[in-house]
Amino acid sequence: MIKIAVPKESELGELRVALVPDTVSRFIKLGFEVLVQSGAGLGAHFTDGDYQAAGAQIISSADQLWTEADLLLKVAPPGEQNGQQEMDWLKPGAVLISFLDPLGNPEKIQALAQRQITAFSMELIPRTSRAQSMDALSSQASIAGYKAALLAAASLPRMFPMMTTAAGTIPPAKVLVIGAGVAGLQAIATAKRLGAVVEAFDVRPAVKEEVQSLGAKFVEIPIEEDTATKGGYAKEVSQNTQERIRQVLTEHVKKSNVVITTAQVQGKRAPIIVTEEMVAEMDSGSVIVDIAADRGGNCACTEPGKDICYNGVHVIGPLNLPATLPVDASQVYAKNLLTLVKYLVKDGEFQLNFEDDIISEACVTYDGQLRNARVKEALSRLVNA
Amino acid sequence: MIKIAVPKESELGELRVALVPDTVSRFIKLGFEVLVQSGAGLGAHFTDGDYQAAGAQIISSADQLWTEADLLLKVAPPGEQNGQQEMDWLKPGAVLISFLDPLGNPEKIQALAQRQITAFSMELIPRTSRAQSMDALSSQASIAGYKAALLAAASLPRMFPMMTTAAGTIPPAKVLVIGAGVAGLQAIATAKRLGAVVEAFDVRPAVKEEVQSLGAKFVEIPIEEDTATKGGYAKEVSQNTQERIRQVLTEHVKKSNVVITTAQVQGKRAPIIVTEEMVAEMDSGSVIVDIAADRGGNCACTEPGKDICYNGVHVIGPLNLPATLPVDASQVYAKNLLTLVKYLVKDGEFQLNFEDDIISEACVTYDGQLRNARVKEALSRLVNA
Repeated sequence: MIKIAVPKESELGELRVALVPDTVSRFIKLGFEVLVQSGAGLGAHFTDGDYQAAGAQIISSADQLWTEADLLLKVAPPGEQNGQQEMDWLKPGAVLISFLDPLGNPEKIQALAQRQITAFSMELIPRTSRAQSMDALSSQASIAGYKAALLAAASLPRMFPMMTTAAGTIPPAKVLVIGAGVAGLQAIATAKRLGAVVEAFDVRPAVKEEVQSLGAKFVEIPIEEDTATKGGYAKEVSQNTQERIRQVLTEHVKKSNVVITTAQVQGKRAPIIVTEEMVAEMDSGSVIVDIAADRGGNCACTEPGKDICYNGVHVIGPLNLPATLPVDASQVYAKNLLTLVKYLVKDGEFQLNFEDDIISEACVTYDGQLRNARVKEALSRLVNA
Repeated sequence: MIKIAVPKESELGELRVALVPDTVSRFIKLGFEVLVQSGAGLGAHFTDGDYQAAGAQIISSADQLWTEADLLLKVAPPGEQNGQQEMDWLKPGAVLISFLDPLGNPEKIQALAQRQITAFSMELIPRTSRAQSMDALSSQASIAGYKAALLAAASLPRMFPMMTTAAGTIPPAKVLVIGAGVAGLQAIATAKRLGAVVEAFDVRPAVKEEVQSLGAKFVEIPIEEDTATKGGYAKEVSQNTQERIRQVLTEHVKKSNVVITTAQVQGKRAPIIVTEEMVAEMDSGSVIVDIAADRGGNCACTEPGKDICYNGVHVIGPLNLPATLPVDASQVYAKNLLTLVKYLVKDGEFQLNFEDDIISEACVTYDGQLRNARVKEALSRLVNA
C-alpha cells in the first residue's frame, strides 16, 4: 500500500496545500494510505479535522512525515527547515511530485538524483490534450490571471465598467493584456466581465482567435519568425522582432489605463516588454500588474514582490499569485496530482513506462540519474558559467 | 461674475476634488470665474496645468482661496488647518456647497449660520427624479458599492466565478448583500459580473424587483411595518422586526462566502445586522465587507477603518470608499454640482426660491438662520443631552 505524505509548505507566503480533504478521500478509496502534516491545510482553510474526516492520518513532526513517505506530494520545491534540507528526510527510492523549478534550479534536481529520489516536475507535464487534466501550470496560471485583473481593478482610481448615471456617463477603463497564454486569457476574461474595454497582444499569432472570442481586440504586429515551441509555449524572439514589438506597443501602452503583463519564456528570465520610457508616457493613475514578476518581470520598472509608484503609475509586481487564492488553487492542483498519480500507479505500484511522453517529460530524476535533456543542459550551463 | 473656488481637500485620505477640469471649462462657458487651489486635483490625478488649460486660475494659498470665494465647492465638510477653521476664512454671504454631515454634526451647521454663510448640504438633495442629476449621495454610493464587491473578491481565498477546467469544476462563490440601496445594487451587479451567485436582503420590499432584475435572489422576510421614508431611504425598524430579520439572516450569512453590508439609516449610527454569533458560524476564509463602517458598521465585529480577522473570517471596515476611486468619483460629483449650481443661479445671480423642494431641503443655512427642521431637531437633541 503506497503511503502518500502531504507536508505543510514551508515557503513564506505559500498558503496552498498539495491535497485537499476531498482528494484525500479519493486517494483512500483507491487504496492509498494518506499522511498529512498537522496544520498543512490551514493556509487554505482546511483543518486537521477536515483531513481526518477524509481518512488521513495526522502527523505532527515534519521530518517524520517526510521519512515515512513513499510518495511525497508538494506544491513548492523542497526547501529548508531549521538548517536542514527537507529533501534529505526522504528515504532513497521515494517518489516526489511537486513544482520543482527544474530549469531555474537544476542543482536541486541533481541533488534529488544523487539521493535516489524519483522526482516529477509539475512544470514539465507536456501541454497535450491527453495531459490536460494534469497540467498544473495551466490550472494555476488561470487563477493568477483572474487575480491579476482583480488587483488591477482594485488599484485603479477609476472604475472598469462604463457607468451611466443621472449625472452623465463614465467611460469604461482601457485594459491591455500582454501575453495571451492561460493567465493572459483569464485576465482578459475577468477584465471583460468587469466591463473594461480590452485589447491583447501575443507573439504567437495562433492565439488571436482565442483573444477575439473573449471579446477583446487583438493587437496585430506582423512577425516573421517562428514564435511558439512545439508545446505551444512562447519562444524567445530576436532583437529585431523585440524592437518592432516595442514600437507598436508603445502607442497601446500609452493610451491604456491598465496594462497586465504575463509573458514568460520557460526556464528564462521574463522578457522586458514594457520599457521605462513606455511607463513614463502613461497617464498618472494608470496601473501595471506584472504577473511575470516571479521571473523578474515584463516591465522595466517592476520590483518583484513590491508595489511601487513610478511617475504616478502604480506598478504592481505580485509574487505567487495563485497562493492568494489558496482554496481554489489547492483544489485544482490536488486534482492535477490525483490524475497524474492514477496515471503512474497500476495495481498498487508505480509503473513507469518511459516510452510514454507524459512520464518521460515530467520525470526529472530516476534511478540516481538526471533524466531530462533540458535540465541537463541548464545544469551544464551553470557548471560552465 | 460669480467667483467659484475649489480648495484642496484637507481631510486625510480624501483624494476627491469638487470640480474636474472638464466641469471647470463648462462653468467658465456659463460665465463663472473659477479659482482652484494649487494641488487640489492631484489626488484624482489632475494637475494644476489641466485646470489652467480649462480656464481656471490657480491660487496657492488656502486662506486666500477661501476668502475670495463667492461660491465654495467642496467634497468633505470644512475642517481645520493649522488650528484654524477653514469656514472662518469665508466671507459673510458666501455660498458653500459640500457634503456637510448636517445630521451627524449639526453644531457645524449652526456655526455656518452664525457666520452668515449660505450652505447647501449635498446629503439633503431630495430623492426625486427632478433632482436625480444632483444626487451626489447616489452617485458616490454607486461607486462605493462597486468597490466593496471588488474588495471582497480581492480578499476572498477563492474565486468568484465558476471555473470549468480540465481538472474539474470550481463552484462559484456565494455572496450575500444586505441593504439594496444604490450601493447595494451596484455591489450585487459587480459580484454578478464577476460570476458569483448572489442573494440580497433589504427591509424595503419595494426593492425586490430591482434585486431580481440584476439576477440575484431576494431573501424574503415578511415585515409588518412601514420600512421606507417618503424619500425612499430605509427607516429604523422595531426591535421585534430586527429580531426576526436576524433569525432569517443567520442561515443565509452562515452559508455565504462573502457578506457585503450597506444598511444605513440617515443621520443615525448604522444598525447592527450581522451579530458576533453570525460571524462565528461562518466558514474560515469567509469575507465581510462592511460599507456602513463610516457610520459604525452593520457588523458587530467591524472596526471602522480596519481589516481584522475574527475566527478566520476577514472583516473589512473601509472608510470613504468613493475616495478610493477619485477620478470617477470626482467626475460624477462635479457634474452633480454643475447641475445644482445651474439650478440655483439665474442671470449671474443666486436666486433662491424656498418654495422649491430641492432648494428648500438642501439649503441648511440662509440669512444667519438654520433652516432645516431635521438639522434643528438633531441640534436640540445634542444641546439637551
